Amino acid sequence: MKLYIGNKNYSSWSMRPWVLMKAFGIAFEELKLRFDFTPGSAFYQALAPVSPTHKVPVLVADDGFVVWDTLAIAEYLAEQYPALNLWPRDARQRARARSLCAEMHAGFGQLRNLCPMNIDADLAAVGQRLLSTEPKLHEDLGRLNALWGEALAASGGPFLFGEFSNVDAYFAPMVMRVSRYGLPLDAAAKAYAQAVQAHPAVAAWVADAVAEKDFLDFEEPYRQAGSAT
Amino acid sequence: MKLYIGNKNYSSWSMRPWVLMKAFGIAFEELKLRFDFTPGSAFYQALAPVSPTHKVPVLVADDGFVVWDTLAIAEYLAEQYPALNLWPRDARQRARARSLCAEMHAGFGQLRNLCPMNIDADLAAVGQRLLSTEPKLHEDLGRLNALWGEALAASGGPFLFGEFSNVDAYFAPMVMRVSRYGLPLDAAAKAYAQAVQAHPAVAAWVADAVAEKDFLDFEEPYRQAGSAT
Ligand SMILES: N[C@@H](CCC(=O)N[C@@H](CS)C(=O)NCC(=O)O)C(=O)O
Ligand SMILES: N[C@@H](CCC(=O)N[C@@H](CS)C(=O)NCC(=O)O)C(=O)O
Repeated sequence: MKLYIGNKNYSSWSMRPWVLMKAFGIAFEELKLRFDFTPGSAFYQALAPVSPTHKVPVLVADDGFVVWDTLAIAEYLAEQYPALNLWPRDARQRARARSLCAEMHAGFGQLRNLCPMNIDADLAAVGQRLLSTEPKLHEDLGRLNALWGEALAASGGPFLFGEFSNVDAYFAPMVMRVSRYGLPLDAAAKAYAQAVQAHPAVAAWVADAVAEKDFLDFEEPYRQAGSAT
Repeated sequence: MKLYIGNKNYSSWSMRPWVLMKAFGIAFEELKLRFDFTPGSAFYQALAPVSPTHKVPVLVADDGFVVWDTLAIAEYLAEQYPALNLWPRDARQRARARSLCAEMHAGFGQLRNLCPMNIDADLAAVGQRLLSTEPKLHEDLGRLNALWGEALAASGGPFLFGEFSNVDAYFAPMVMRVSRYGLPLDAAAKAYAQAVQAHPAVAAWVADAVAEKDFLDFEEPYRQAGSAT
């Protein structure tokens, strides 16, 4: 299988299936496309023959069968590898995990817009400023704390449903955002964010992201090219 | 089971699981909450004890177990009623159907924002104006035509994967938008939109929506209360 992804520092959607497959030992070839959203770019030229949406991530099976969109990729892999239990084993826990992923898939708009993923950056000062100027950020953050808190209280942790599962891969980019923007978390959510960052699959992606050093202006509302650390 | 929904005329998310369950003969009790997004409203008071997101739709099992978010409700029902085949039977068709639903779940932002669902309204004149003033609407419409067209060409129709399935319930609100705003469709997409509207489950929802006659200003960017038909 091939997985097309974008820049590891910035591509929050790409991070999810990559982390999921690494965490569960599913072999794949990584095809990284440098972000460039200008019409006719190399990014779009590479994606056009592969994905109908021209977005990453895209999964391509060995015979060329294509699955696009993060949540569909997760479901496809869960069906292909039933023994791996990418979702929680219990039917009701699985339903809850899917509620959380579906909520993540279409939600948290303020947090996503205001705090684009930027793994290489220390944006704690920006986070502080946003917390005082953007009341809606508090709503998303409140919901994130509640959502993580409830799942962790029910499972006992360290991950949302005990063992690492697809739902943790789904929230990994949110962990990176709250970490880099220094957003406040409750004690349980903070421990969870640390556990996610300590997971080998997440740590591997983060290491690649930090090594990337590919500063893209259009993904950087808060840093100047020269001042990037 | 209980399904909490919003106004049938306006609630595009609620329409999906309702149509799905009706189409497949899954029994449920409908609990309709009138939209009112002011803090402390009866809408939120009814939802607060039920759903962590305080949004509709929400599915509540007989023993109180709660599944929220449209896509998670669809997956839960598919697992609960495997014999009904809510998703296409073939694994690869199922993967494609899920790609389409996941794309719908987070996508088509321009079409959704500019053309809120309003089943009772004839907004063809508004649609014509939007087509000339909003170039991004054409992008979403182009993708919708392509997506429907490809699936229909592969399956032979009349629904996206042949028989009516969850993916058709997922696109039913889009069918209502393109219909009411008179947005242009290719021939195959047009036939599909007609087939969806002719499906008994969709027709039942539409009949209820038209009978509702509950004009809500905040859902009506284009009509005046007095002039509504
Ligand atoms: N809902 C999609 C979103 C994918 C997405 O927006 N990907 C971005 C990069 S993170 C992209 O490829 N954008 C290119 C474009 O929008 O043209 C998914 O979950 O896969
Ligand atoms: N991603 C959610 C979206 C649900 C949603 O936005 N529902 C709207 C009505 S169609 C709602 O309840 N809004 C209340 C609110 O936002 O507070 C789902 O698929 O269920």
